Amino acid sequence: MKCTDESFISDDVRMRGFKHRSTVEDVTNWLDQQSIERQQESIAIQNARGRVLTDDIVSDINIPGFARSMMDGYALIASDTQGASSYNQLPLQIIGKSMPGRGADVKVSAGTAVKIMTGAPLPEGANAILPAENVELDEAFIMVMESVAEGRNVALMGEDICPDSIILKQGRRLRPQDIALLASIGKKEIAVYKRLKISIVVTGNEIQAVGTRPQGFQVTNSNGPMLEALANRDDAEIISSVIVSDDPEKIEQAMQADYDVLLITGGTSVGEEDLVPLLVAKLGQLKFHGVTMRPSRSTGLGMIDKKLVFLLPGNPVACLCAYDFFAGRLIRRISAHHRNWPYFSVSKKLKQKITSMLGRTDYARVRFSDDNMIEPIAISGAGILSSTTQADGFVIVPANSEGYATGTELDVFLYD
Amino acid sequence: MKCTDESFISDDVRMRGFKHRSTVEDVTNWLDQQSIERQQESIAIQNARGRVLTDDIVSDINIPGFARSMMDGYALIASDTQGASSYNQLPLQIIGKSMPGRGADVKVSAGTAVKIMTGAPLPEGANAILPAENVELDEAFIMVMESVAEGRNVALMGEDICPDSIILKQGRRLRPQDIALLASIGKKEIAVYKRLKISIVVTGNEIQAVGTRPQGFQVTNSNGPMLEALANRDDAEIISSVIVSDDPEKIEQAMQADYDVLLITGGTSVGEEDLVPLLVAKLGQLKFHGVTMRPSRSTGLGMIDKKLVFLLPGNPVACLCAYDFFAGRLIRRISAHHRNWPYFSVSKKLKQKITSMLGRTDYARVRFSDDNMIEPIAISGAGILSSTTQADGFVIVPANSEGYATGTELDVFLYD
Repeated sequence: MKCTDESFISDDVRMRGFKHRSTVEDVTNWLDQQSIERQQESIAIQNARGRVLTDDIVSDINIPGFARSMMDGYALIASDTQGASSYNQLPLQIIGKSMPGRGADVKVSAGTAVKIMTGAPLPEGANAILPAENVELDEAFIMVMESVAEGRNVALMGEDICPDSIILKQGRRLRPQDIALLASIGKKEIAVYKRLKISIVVTGNEIQAVGTRPQGFQVTNSNGPMLEALANRDDAEIISSVIVSDDPEKIEQAMQADYDVLLITGGTSVGEEDLVPLLVAKLGQLKFHGVTMRPSRSTGLGMIDKKLVFLLPGNPVACLCAYDFFAGRLIRRISAHHRNWPYFSVSKKLKQKITSMLGRTDYARVRFSDDNMIEPIAISGAGILSSTTQADGFVIVPANSEGYATGTELDVFLYD
Repeated sequence: MKCTDESFISDDVRMRGFKHRSTVEDVTNWLDQQSIERQQESIAIQNARGRVLTDDIVSDINIPGFARSMMDGYALIASDTQGASSYNQLPLQIIGKSMPGRGADVKVSAGTAVKIMTGAPLPEGANAILPAENVELDEAFIMVMESVAEGRNVALMGEDICPDSIILKQGRRLRPQDIALLASIGKKEIAVYKRLKISIVVTGNEIQAVGTRPQGFQVTNSNGPMLEALANRDDAEIISSVIVSDDPEKIEQAMQADYDVLLITGGTSVGEEDLVPLLVAKLGQLKFHGVTMRPSRSTGLGMIDKKLVFLLPGNPVACLCAYDFFAGRLIRRISAHHRNWPYFSVSKKLKQKITSMLGRTDYARVRFSDDNMIEPIAISGAGILSSTTQADGFVIVPANSEGYATGTELDVFLYD
């Protein structure tokens, strides 16, 4: 089958424009309902940051595993310190020393104390730790200069974690301190969901492989490596990333890999060469095609074999925008990120007005001006990739706004 | 040399308390002045997200490399469309077709047009693109129903990138769209700074390797894997992560690896077993030791052979806090992150007061309450790691504040 043989496409769908365009909200509302079934795998806890637990984690031990000191000082019986002050120093006999991992072989009784280091086990008989700075040393005695309450500076057994308690819940995206908690109870490996598997397909006869210096009418693949970086950022795994010519059979083949999510860019609009929407409709369902936004109005969303397929515009700015609005939003949610946007935002005043159109959501690249305001990037067509590299970030003008006047205070998402 | 042979340490420095404590600001101000010399390496652009350019990147080509269409439509001479409307349709003869990567072999002259796809080269003679939706087809003719201005819907050669222009500057931390830009000009590899090399040393006779179920007075290494995850998050590379017993010779040896930054935890305070500050002073310089903050007051900072050494508290909460306040701040800055904190922040009202002390910076773990306010975590000693896993984030009470009353609106950093 040659790329010029497109007999399966009826003429009336060619270059027809979008019959119906959906709002950004329609698409994201639908997207937020979608779930993706994933397998699990067991991984070393050291590699688990950002991964998502498949099960509750229950401790079978106490942390601390023993009552221990939280200070360098002296383990003693609290009542022995009552009334102590620098004017009324009370002597206690030092009968031993408790070190981390070792402990003391003695029992503290009235009138005695054990020298103790932070983290060392509380000796039998003692019920408080007096910090080192509150005593004077006098050979085999300490002179207590301050009273201390029972339990003071002692971490009780199980104070941090009790046996049979759930320490981390199913669905938790693991943080560095979670890894520490897992380590502390002796875990070596844990079960997590596999990363979302992403396939990337870039279509177009003109597209050359990364590393090719473009010549004549060639264009080097830039959306592919950008989408790889974006999906990696959002904790997904790229299982394939290919360039396919405008040949329906080859595109169809590339659309059938073993992915959870397919990102396909180029040939996704409604032009004569735009085979992708038709192929998605043929192989599955084209759920949305055409969104009331700028750029990225040709964005589409479909399903093939219950797998989500994102039709991303070929123009690189529109591709970036559509990824972040839709594909990235889904990937981040499934990866248990709490936020729809992966960008920090700051509030800044607009130096120059931004105009938009009622009913259309705009993605406007902006940069910081010398006087710490924001201004829209002048040349900002969907094809001008440098508008996103010269920008410090972007603002979103929602569909119900006609834009913003000079001086308006806006939330700017900062590119990262 | 046994761990009990500590004859090189004079008695008067033992368990002495901190003679002088520095403010958080003192430490961070000093830290922000430090630079770290790093080697460079060449890497594939696909792996370059988050890496930092060693040199300006200059393009030697135009992007687009040729004038191209930004729409599906018809390439024509703009003046041929003047006066056109749906009531005054003007015919133009279709003389060819321009496709991406191929172009048309014809020249557009008055009265003619070339069908053109998005991304396809503008044919000779044409100076505008009329979108497909603005024409009616009539066999070999289009009936123009709207006028179009010269240059409209055409991306000019070099509009995005001109030859000899700097497209990305030295020191740039690369974003996904930067990778796309590099790809578009044909780059395959680029020179970036090597990641910061981090060594992690956890000291303590009681510390067991990850994966060990702690027994008796043992404690399983949790700070090590936590610090690995934190430094990885901040784009550093862990070159070694070891546990060392409280033996000065072994600690000294572990402190001399080929790192850029050393993170050492346990034995870093001023107790009898705290060998690390003394060893740092012996091998180099102990710049700071003791900070007016809670937790993490025993944090220290030194230099050995011009390499930065962070003395982090052994208590896990304090270790996390000291990493984020100091070590992470440095690592992120050197990795060209723009922010001191890697956490998103939100503004929330305090459900329950937080008390602090004038002159001390507090790091208070908080969680969201059911009514969408924040409340401090009750059990929050520096040893209670679960206070950081049960928390949704933390607030910082600066040294000049005695705390916050119920109802105060605060910025909360969200753990991630």
